[in-house]
Amino acid sequence: MSAASEGRGDTRHHVVIIGCGFGGLFAARALRREEVRVTIIDRTNHHLFQPLLYQVATGILSEGQIAPAIRDVLRRHRSVRVVLGEVEHIDLDEKSVHVDEFGKPMTIRYDSLIVAGGATTSYFGHDDFRHAASGMKSLDDALALRGEIFGAFELAEAEPDAAARQRLMTFVVVGGGPTGVEMAGQLKELSRRALRRNYRRINPQDARVVLVEGTDRLLGSMGARVSRLTAHKLTRMGVEISLDTMVSDMDDEGVEITTSDGDKQRIPAATKIWAAGTRASALGGLLADGAHADLDKAGRVKVAPDCSLPGYPEVFVVGDLMALDDLPGVAEVAMQSGAHAAHTIVRRIKGKEPKGFRYRDLGTLAAISRFTAVARIGPVQVGGLIGWLLWLVVHITFLTGFKNRFGALTRWAVSFVGRGRYERALTGRWVAHGGRHSEPA
Amino acid sequence: MSAASEGRGDTRHHVVIIGCGFGGLFAARALRREEVRVTIIDRTNHHLFQPLLYQVATGILSEGQIAPAIRDVLRRHRSVRVVLGEVEHIDLDEKSVHVDEFGKPMTIRYDSLIVAGGATTSYFGHDDFRHAASGMKSLDDALALRGEIFGAFELAEAEPDAAARQRLMTFVVVGGGPTGVEMAGQLKELSRRALRRNYRRINPQDARVVLVEGTDRLLGSMGARVSRLTAHKLTRMGVEISLDTMVSDMDDEGVEITTSDGDKQRIPAATKIWAAGTRASALGGLLADGAHADLDKAGRVKVAPDCSLPGYPEVFVVGDLMALDDLPGVAEVAMQSGAHAAHTIVRRIKGKEPKGFRYRDLGTLAAISRFTAVARIGPVQVGGLIGWLLWLVVHITFLTGFKNRFGALTRWAVSFVGRGRYERALTGRWVAHGGRHSEPA
Repeated sequence: MSAASEGRGDTRHHVVIIGCGFGGLFAARALRREEVRVTIIDRTNHHLFQPLLYQVATGILSEGQIAPAIRDVLRRHRSVRVVLGEVEHIDLDEKSVHVDEFGKPMTIRYDSLIVAGGATTSYFGHDDFRHAASGMKSLDDALALRGEIFGAFELAEAEPDAAARQRLMTFVVVGGGPTGVEMAGQLKELSRRALRRNYRRINPQDARVVLVEGTDRLLGSMGARVSRLTAHKLTRMGVEISLDTMVSDMDDEGVEITTSDGDKQRIPAATKIWAAGTRASALGGLLADGAHADLDKAGRVKVAPDCSLPGYPEVFVVGDLMALDDLPGVAEVAMQSGAHAAHTIVRRIKGKEPKGFRYRDLGTLAAISRFTAVARIGPVQVGGLIGWLLWLVVHITFLTGFKNRFGALTRWAVSFVGRGRYERALTGRWVAHGGRHSEPA
Repeated sequence: MSAASEGRGDTRHHVVIIGCGFGGLFAARALRREEVRVTIIDRTNHHLFQPLLYQVATGILSEGQIAPAIRDVLRRHRSVRVVLGEVEHIDLDEKSVHVDEFGKPMTIRYDSLIVAGGATTSYFGHDDFRHAASGMKSLDDALALRGEIFGAFELAEAEPDAAARQRLMTFVVVGGGPTGVEMAGQLKELSRRALRRNYRRINPQDARVVLVEGTDRLLGSMGARVSRLTAHKLTRMGVEISLDTMVSDMDDEGVEITTSDGDKQRIPAATKIWAAGTRASALGGLLADGAHADLDKAGRVKVAPDCSLPGYPEVFVVGDLMALDDLPGVAEVAMQSGAHAAHTIVRRIKGKEPKGFRYRDLGTLAAISRFTAVARIGPVQVGGLIGWLLWLVVHITFLTGFKNRFGALTRWAVSFVGRGRYERALTGRWVAHGGRHSEPA
């Protein structure tokens, strides 16, 4: 019984979705009541609520709280089949996707295809930085980082040399977008509140958190007022902000930064977090094979106004993998473009003309500390408690779309507002690896 | 600044505690208001609430919920210092403990010593079984097992061959004590309820759960009525119980069992869980070096009636590592003996005579499914809902001793009683390892 033959007998239009991030998931959901069958392919078993990944890395949330099993989220979608595997080839002319499913090759034919491969960490050509700095894109990243962060304080407590101790307690966050800002804020919360009274030799408050940003503003996409508010609040919390600054070198020992004036400075730091750049998933390259698709500089696939691939009206590219109108790589774009692709497929089945994708910008948000967040809603920029309440409502609304709302919410109420960081366990393996939880992925 | 020199100037009696399981933790707590300083040494950063480890393995609880950071639990105990490291040597005559702290040697001198090293998994001389069957003693064990269990259903969904599929969906639990019984019950709950509607090819309800026990009774320590109730309830849930049966062979493919009549049977099974035996920690061997201590067959250290080491009134062995009056290796014995050792140290400092340790048996409990547990309180044996409520109250009481009470309780209310199993995330690494989360520890 091969997967390819399985659909025989089922004459419904077959939609194949690659990737179950926000784009793929919202496409599958939009097809729920339609007369189609759906196959969704992902390399992991979970959807990942990426905007809260930094809370897994800093011990507030457990991995299960932001990563519900795809099968469970879609269990009532009876015509959706979930395949765990790696897409190795896409044949646009044969209309088939070739998947490696646990080492076995499988061919899945489609009538319509939605490619929602998302993005991975980009080190801007410095692939050697990968070994020194964890990215912030996957659960593996967040769990490795969690081990590094809590492990660094343990190593510092055991370190007799003052300079070595300071290096262990220095955290460099590269990238002043939402992930970098939220991460820097949480690291300060951790050192100022969560770890209070935990150590006898070190004072966790002595931890340095350095936030490095290449442009002249934090949260550049959110407007000048938000940038100012963010910088002000983070500075008051003790985060050292370096704007107009690039990372020119990086290794296990630390980071070398270079300002736009050419000044170089070396920061000894054990923990480096790379929240600077993303690159479209390698699936873009598969589509470009044989010059079927054009990629932009970031590896994203250029699409027609309805998100379809030029020349292939049955193939759609959505989310972070899509290059359209310079839309940003945010969850909201992925959700809306995924749903748009699904609706367009239904229109085509019904013989209707496709419509162009119109992104409704609902705004962006970033939490800086408990009770403080910044937000831009249309042209309005707000900060402080109002921003935070808005942030909370939006994230609760999304999380409640999944099953784990109750646990997540109460844990939040207790953890995020409170002092506790429950997810701090370093396993025996961490000690065996000499203070490293695991190799960076 | 070496750890050995750190105590100089502090003339208080120095109590060193090795291990922060139930025995070590309760010893430290009992010393809180006394005029002593305490150093507690553990190889991980967390206390582990072992009785709920099976709930981490089956996706109900996150690791942080049963493994609070030791430093956080003891943060208000100002005279307690926590050292993360591996004890390599104990010098009873010099009164010192030699620790490897992240690769650096450290010597800690003590006035009194409490050794609470606990127990590890014993494969009864079949050390090759270790590669085929996960133990159930550490977080590493539980997380590896979680990956195996949820991974097995994924591999089964992708498996075209019926026999191979059945092997993937067969779970053999070895050992009919509380851990084995609770694990078998939860595996059935998982297949019957939690994974319902999740798959399209397999029916998770077809999963076989086989519980193998060497004696003629489940939960042998809890009385005949409890044993009967447990066997009846598990059988009704669909667990296959093999009493009077030993595991004679075991490999990746499956298990060979041999009944007391000599009948051999092979069970193809992907997932094997070893809940059969424990062996005292290797710390017992360190104490026995130079014939300072006598060990029993299980590697436990024979102690005087006050839990001290014969000939060394300042050294105590407690919990699973202690051999005294045939006391069972349960949490309750560890807690009480740990506290007893602490109290005895205080009595000695005050010039009082030590008292013998008297174990107050509060009974034992095991949860079989939601709403059903069995319990023995003194001579009284109960089962069903009353047993379950009792089980719940006892576990809530203990968990509330730590900070994570609120999150744990609400997650429980939702997860354990409800259908959901939130902690199911298989990371990219799992897929990369060909369907194995990691190597067994």
